[in-house]
Amino acid sequence: MAHFMNKKEDMVVEAIDGVVAASGKKLLRLDGYPHIKVVTRKDWDRSKVALVSGGGSGHEPAHAGFVGRGMLTAAVCGDIFASPSVDAVLAGILAVTGPSGCLLIVKNYTGDRLNFGLAAERARAFGLKVEMVIVDDDIALPDLPQARGIAGTLFVHKIAGALAERGEDLETIANAARQVIAGTKSIGMSLSTCSVPGSPKEDRIPAGMVELGLGIHGEAGVEQISFEDAAAAMSAVVDKLDSVMGEERYVALLNNLGGTSVLEMNVLLYELNQSKIGKRIEYIVGPASLMTSLDMRGFSISVYPASNEEIQLLAQSTPVAAWPGLEEIGPIETVGLPDGLTPIAPLPSEHEATRRFLIDCCQVLIDAEDDLNALDAKSGDGDTGSTLAGAARALIGAMDRLPLADHTQLYRAIGLELSQTMGGSSGVLLAIFFAATGDGASSGRPAREAFQAGLDRMQEIGGARLGDRTMVDALLPALNALDDGFEAAAKAARDGANHTASMLQAKAGRATYVSAKQLEGHVDPGAEAVARLFEHLSKSDLPI
Amino acid sequence: MAHFMNKKEDMVVEAIDGVVAASGKKLLRLDGYPHIKVVTRKDWDRSKVALVSGGGSGHEPAHAGFVGRGMLTAAVCGDIFASPSVDAVLAGILAVTGPSGCLLIVKNYTGDRLNFGLAAERARAFGLKVEMVIVDDDIALPDLPQARGIAGTLFVHKIAGALAERGEDLETIANAARQVIAGTKSIGMSLSTCSVPGSPKEDRIPAGMVELGLGIHGEAGVEQISFEDAAAAMSAVVDKLDSVMGEERYVALLNNLGGTSVLEMNVLLYELNQSKIGKRIEYIVGPASLMTSLDMRGFSISVYPASNEEIQLLAQSTPVAAWPGLEEIGPIETVGLPDGLTPIAPLPSEHEATRRFLIDCCQVLIDAEDDLNALDAKSGDGDTGSTLAGAARALIGAMDRLPLADHTQLYRAIGLELSQTMGGSSGVLLAIFFAATGDGASSGRPAREAFQAGLDRMQEIGGARLGDRTMVDALLPALNALDDGFEAAAKAARDGANHTASMLQAKAGRATYVSAKQLEGHVDPGAEAVARLFEHLSKSDLPI
Repeated sequence: MAHFMNKKEDMVVEAIDGVVAASGKKLLRLDGYPHIKVVTRKDWDRSKVALVSGGGSGHEPAHAGFVGRGMLTAAVCGDIFASPSVDAVLAGILAVTGPSGCLLIVKNYTGDRLNFGLAAERARAFGLKVEMVIVDDDIALPDLPQARGIAGTLFVHKIAGALAERGEDLETIANAARQVIAGTKSIGMSLSTCSVPGSPKEDRIPAGMVELGLGIHGEAGVEQISFEDAAAAMSAVVDKLDSVMGEERYVALLNNLGGTSVLEMNVLLYELNQSKIGKRIEYIVGPASLMTSLDMRGFSISVYPASNEEIQLLAQSTPVAAWPGLEEIGPIETVGLPDGLTPIAPLPSEHEATRRFLIDCCQVLIDAEDDLNALDAKSGDGDTGSTLAGAARALIGAMDRLPLADHTQLYRAIGLELSQTMGGSSGVLLAIFFAATGDGASSGRPAREAFQAGLDRMQEIGGARLGDRTMVDALLPALNALDDGFEAAAKAARDGANHTASMLQAKAGRATYVSAKQLEGHVDPGAEAVARLFEHLSKSDLPI
Repeated sequence: MAHFMNKKEDMVVEAIDGVVAASGKKLLRLDGYPHIKVVTRKDWDRSKVALVSGGGSGHEPAHAGFVGRGMLTAAVCGDIFASPSVDAVLAGILAVTGPSGCLLIVKNYTGDRLNFGLAAERARAFGLKVEMVIVDDDIALPDLPQARGIAGTLFVHKIAGALAERGEDLETIANAARQVIAGTKSIGMSLSTCSVPGSPKEDRIPAGMVELGLGIHGEAGVEQISFEDAAAAMSAVVDKLDSVMGEERYVALLNNLGGTSVLEMNVLLYELNQSKIGKRIEYIVGPASLMTSLDMRGFSISVYPASNEEIQLLAQSTPVAAWPGLEEIGPIETVGLPDGLTPIAPLPSEHEATRRFLIDCCQVLIDAEDDLNALDAKSGDGDTGSTLAGAARALIGAMDRLPLADHTQLYRAIGLELSQTMGGSSGVLLAIFFAATGDGASSGRPAREAFQAGLDRMQEIGGARLGDRTMVDALLPALNALDDGFEAAAKAARDGANHTASMLQAKAGRATYVSAKQLEGHVDPGAEAVARLFEHLSKSDLPI
């Protein structure tokens, strides 16, 4: 599988340089590439306890992404899934440690323990105070004496980071970190393995299965179980957590292992809240990519029964963008639908001339059905005539419900009828046209201006301009000519409609997908309908 | 491809419920499921201008994830990649709009324009002030009259949101939004299409190719180009942006389309900064998942030449967790490596008895090489003897460099030599042992206690406890017995080593991977080495 990378051996250093460059001058890196890959805070005066974490790369944003005020002071990065060297860790310690000392936060992998451990010894030889804590939150293998460190590490980063920022001493911070580690339990689940840059992807998890209790380096899970759905998957994860949880109130951390869509993470968040441990989870961190395994399509959950003081530390604000913050989680709050969704039907009223005029116009469209369908077949799916005729028939049927005697109400009422009876975009657009015309008319503007307001709004929403081969090409010239009388308007509409036959590139509506050759010589059916209406109006009595 | 979901038709509503539940009581949803999916701020008094956005789902965190103080007031969510209905949009508008009015922020898709447009008309019929802006930032098809709205929408959300929070009026906010839209340009690139829940994945992009100018609904890109590496890919994207950019200073937004690893996004961040437009990009939002296309392995970049005031609005803090903040982006700042990485060599000194003693001990290990290798072959890769003998030979060769007359310095010096000459975990562990022993000795503790301190530290870092079938099983009893003399210590070491032959489950080191049957009856080679050393010491002159 391809990756957005250049040379594999440059991937980690380039990624770190990206993070440093985009840090708003808040981060530095040590000038020790490629062997020493260390990111530190720039705004750091060594007056407080330094927090240094790190390990193999491939878990971004961990750990360089968590360097910043209130979290880590430095991150020491190895190559992908490989521990950094003793020299690199020592460089990190020496770069940030002052008289208050330094806490190393290390995930429980042999390489990290040894390299951070020896670096700590070498730093102590300089007289520096260095403590080290080892995170072992993974409960996938309950009998394993050396449980792995996974995303629960973030609880340690945040709580220790907030304490260090507050100026606590090394012993206090180290003890607090050990307490968090002792109480943090995590487990992961994945639908597919990660793809390691430069290596073929291991297709270990068969279709229909999901892996439970996997590591963050592509290590196989403890078991593969059948994948039914999100609820069953969460239930399997929650069963493992429940077996090691007490009855206290917990903070949960929902971690995206890297390739899971945000939509799915939100579904998992929902399922966690609904699960049998949901009631005990009072606060949540995430869902977010915190401790990833490259692009793994999976997640992990970490739980910790934080004290009130620890909740404050987790909630304390930090400029670190990768930390998503702490939120309360609880019931799904809803509020009733607002009034007004059911449109208020206007009071019907009778006005004989208006009724006759409307039926007349509708009849024009009904009569044009076959012609308009034939035109539409040249550029679309051949249903413009039927759509308009159907709407016209429906409007005739609705005549007794319309406020025929109140013309400003009438426009809106026609718009409402059309929006409810006509399918597709054209129904919505005509509804918008009549609604906006009604707005114009109700503000006392003359009919031509009201129609112009309707057309403006329809163009704004529909996006069609003159020359785009739509009904606008007939309607706009017709309205412009209307002050000179209906005959002038009808002529302008006809000219405009005919002109569409020479427009070889439709720019709105479905005809945009049709080639010039197919369009040539054929009038746009919407424009034709408008022209026929105006031609009819020019021969009629006009109540508007 | 499997997804973390339950029934497809429930996916969006469950995901929204997850977001609402985990919002810390800052969000509500309207009680209109499944037809009406609207998320609103809970802490909203309608006194300011409301901002309503939305559209199809599948773009999370957009848009429900951006509801909160300083950004959106409500989000109206459709099904996956489908516009919400007119009723849903109207419900959203009515739920949050007060006398100051409402701005609709709509991405340029026909369905969204029409449904939001008609809902606006219906809301206006209630006398509400409603304005609508249409985001069309995609430059993939420069000749397209209806450019799509993609991730640049976030600039509008943030700038309009900050203005609304400040109490500006609707006209001011709508004009500001239109200005942002006019200046925002975006384009996307992807290595693979998204997988739509419930549908087979379309494998449109062949291996070795990458798609440029794709949409956020799985629409095909404008072109497929050969994928060389991250630099070339970024260059193709940047060429498109450059062609529509001026010479001003820009803000860039680097958007993860959903399935790209954070590591890769950071490489792309680096490449953007290094690219030919990098110098003109002064501020960055992301990289982050902002406007995704489910799990698409791709990214998009949006650029906008923000004014100083707009920069302030983009930088203004918001509790919305999905907004990653604005940072300056610039050169990669580095600082030199700290002093102390090259260990200071102790001053050599001569002490004949110590020299003889050390050479003697080394000779014990050299003599044991074959026996220890044979033991190790039962539980490991058969090299323990050679590793220890090699280190012993190297130590003999280093004798002239050692501070033989200064015993407290000597321990540390031996540790340093071992860390530089022995490979693997055991070298690091012995280096830690001698370094910590040196610490103990230098603080004036007697030799037994100094060695005990060394063992404690080695156990802390290595994790081996008594009974774990390691050298600890001989060394710990030997040190405990040392106060009774070397003969007692030698006997304790031998008993401890022999006991390892009955330990059927190794709990530290490589032997953890070996079955009980293979281990039975064989002494651990590390413990055997310790026993042989103590047995030799019990017959020697002792300078320590």
